[in-house]
Amino acid sequence: MKDKAAKPGGRAAPAQKRPAHRLTMADVARRAGVSTATVSRALTRPDQVNEKTRDLVRGIAEELGFRPNLIGRQLRVRAATSLLILVQDLDNPFYAELIKGAEAVARANHLSVMVGGTDGLEEVEQLYSEQFLGRRVDGLVILFGHLPAGISPKMAEHSPIVLVSEDNPALNLSSVLVDNVGWAERAMGYLMERGHRRIAHITGPLARIISRQRQEGYWNALAKAGLPQDPALEALGDFSFERGRAAARELLSLPDRPTAIFCANDEAAVGAILGAADLGLSVPSDVSLIGFDDIMLAQISQPPLTTIRQPRQQMGAAAAQLLIDMIEHGPGKRAHKQLDCELIERSSVRSI
Amino acid sequence: MKDKAAKPGGRAAPAQKRPAHRLTMADVARRAGVSTATVSRALTRPDQVNEKTRDLVRGIAEELGFRPNLIGRQLRVRAATSLLILVQDLDNPFYAELIKGAEAVARANHLSVMVGGTDGLEEVEQLYSEQFLGRRVDGLVILFGHLPAGISPKMAEHSPIVLVSEDNPALNLSSVLVDNVGWAERAMGYLMERGHRRIAHITGPLARIISRQRQEGYWNALAKAGLPQDPALEALGDFSFERGRAAARELLSLPDRPTAIFCANDEAAVGAILGAADLGLSVPSDVSLIGFDDIMLAQISQPPLTTIRQPRQQMGAAAAQLLIDMIEHGPGKRAHKQLDCELIERSSVRSI
Repeated sequence: MKDKAAKPGGRAAPAQKRPAHRLTMADVARRAGVSTATVSRALTRPDQVNEKTRDLVRGIAEELGFRPNLIGRQLRVRAATSLLILVQDLDNPFYAELIKGAEAVARANHLSVMVGGTDGLEEVEQLYSEQFLGRRVDGLVILFGHLPAGISPKMAEHSPIVLVSEDNPALNLSSVLVDNVGWAERAMGYLMERGHRRIAHITGPLARIISRQRQEGYWNALAKAGLPQDPALEALGDFSFERGRAAARELLSLPDRPTAIFCANDEAAVGAILGAADLGLSVPSDVSLIGFDDIMLAQISQPPLTTIRQPRQQMGAAAAQLLIDMIEHGPGKRAHKQLDCELIERSSVRSI
Repeated sequence: MKDKAAKPGGRAAPAQKRPAHRLTMADVARRAGVSTATVSRALTRPDQVNEKTRDLVRGIAEELGFRPNLIGRQLRVRAATSLLILVQDLDNPFYAELIKGAEAVARANHLSVMVGGTDGLEEVEQLYSEQFLGRRVDGLVILFGHLPAGISPKMAEHSPIVLVSEDNPALNLSSVLVDNVGWAERAMGYLMERGHRRIAHITGPLARIISRQRQEGYWNALAKAGLPQDPALEALGDFSFERGRAAARELLSLPDRPTAIFCANDEAAVGAILGAADLGLSVPSDVSLIGFDDIMLAQISQPPLTTIRQPRQQMGAAAAQLLIDMIEHGPGKRAHKQLDCELIERSSVRSI
């Protein structure tokens, strides 16, 4: 059986015998008695055919189980535009609100949002890069501060890519960020205003720029208050609950233990609550804690966590808007947006 | 400037003036002094050109910031295959492990996994359907038990689509499931073995099949024990923490309050712990709780939650494997996999 289109109005044998996933537009055309071009228009540019023809073609396509193959054909029609949000760990609760913000803007523009997790693996980054370079996704929101393997800085410069939450100044890409250094200083200031002087820090993973920025804020605040940097008061963390718990146990076992801990993120801070409990200490009566991010967990932890709230919804929305502009008009000048955080007072800090 | 390819070995003016996102393979070819076909091969089928040519072409492509447009061209080469996992609420902690299972299998097969959240909105489902129908994603894993708007049952029959966790028998699609009725009965049996007779149930959203199945398991267990169904002991939930908290308050305010509650999922159960605390009651001394799913929260809640563990990683892996088979060999006969759950004993149930 050849796949040549029947003439408009012509009739030919039905095509049910062909396996449905091998059906072509010509099969639908033959069955509907219209040209292949009409089938193509009816399925992909329905405004260009009359309603009766459209309903006929769609009805037959559905009856046969036909699914048009838009790739590798001459069709210039594209499926709806999509944004891919790349994160390192998909189950990090930090991302949910940010994704919601991006979704709201994307949906209003008839774009779909998909999320991919790399687990920091280069070979996985490469897979997502192939989706992007093959134009199966149209824009990238990157949440880990570097280009995925397979996309060079030069390619990125001319592509709809936005870095969010974590910057990489070396790349000179568009970005949506908060001032991590400044808000870490603000968290420290809040503790100092409440009388704390011996303040420890549980860092994030120091390979990541946001971790180094929050650590810098910690150091700046100490310097401004004329307090020395004490290496014993800095515990290496990795943003995880488990590591936060272990780090708090280390810090709170010091002979001269800190009265407060600035945790580089909320998950570590919630871990630190349990680390304190492991030693029979409670928050905030024995030790005060302040976090960063304001994830959902910060509200339901016992005690609820005082923290720095990142405007994640707005960050996601701003990123989606930047990408949509780039997709529509081509990537122009780099845009850098900085949004404001907010200090959320709950019950994990006391005055001493 | 016309986009005709230079002859192999020919030389032409450099193409830097064209905006990078409008560059074509012909621009790269002109600059490299090779044919457009050679550029195409060097960028997409590098095994078919010699190393020197490949490096030359790739170097120039990178220098110009050229990104090949594989869609809407004659190129038959496709970007790597991708699976799209569709969920209702992206921030539901139930999904993380399932996605990890799918990722492991997909990565081993050089496929990428992307996740999309619909929030139950038809117009959003439609956007993802367009990605699928336009073949920008190759397979669908659906976690909400119905086809997204825009994909008819007939289309689905001939497409790589798998329902996971939540079935829809009317659709006759391939599926990966657990026996929700049977394991709900097992949860009830566990409470009854510990002396509980007055057992309440916080349901899931009853529009969802899994909620109705778990409710059926609750009823079956009562019937088998010769206990009556008491409508006062059933509180409508929606799988959320907040609703679980409110429902527990209702149930535990009854004059003859239940000694145990079977919660349709863990989030509701963790909410119920706080609902009990709102009334000055504690778990398990005043009321026993059992959940369903074994999400991460079940381990860190106070007390840790006794629950039914779904083998989410294996479910995700099985779904990815089914899809890969369908993508490679065409959707054949429906496959239905049922995996086993496990009862995880922690500290939220006591014997009475």
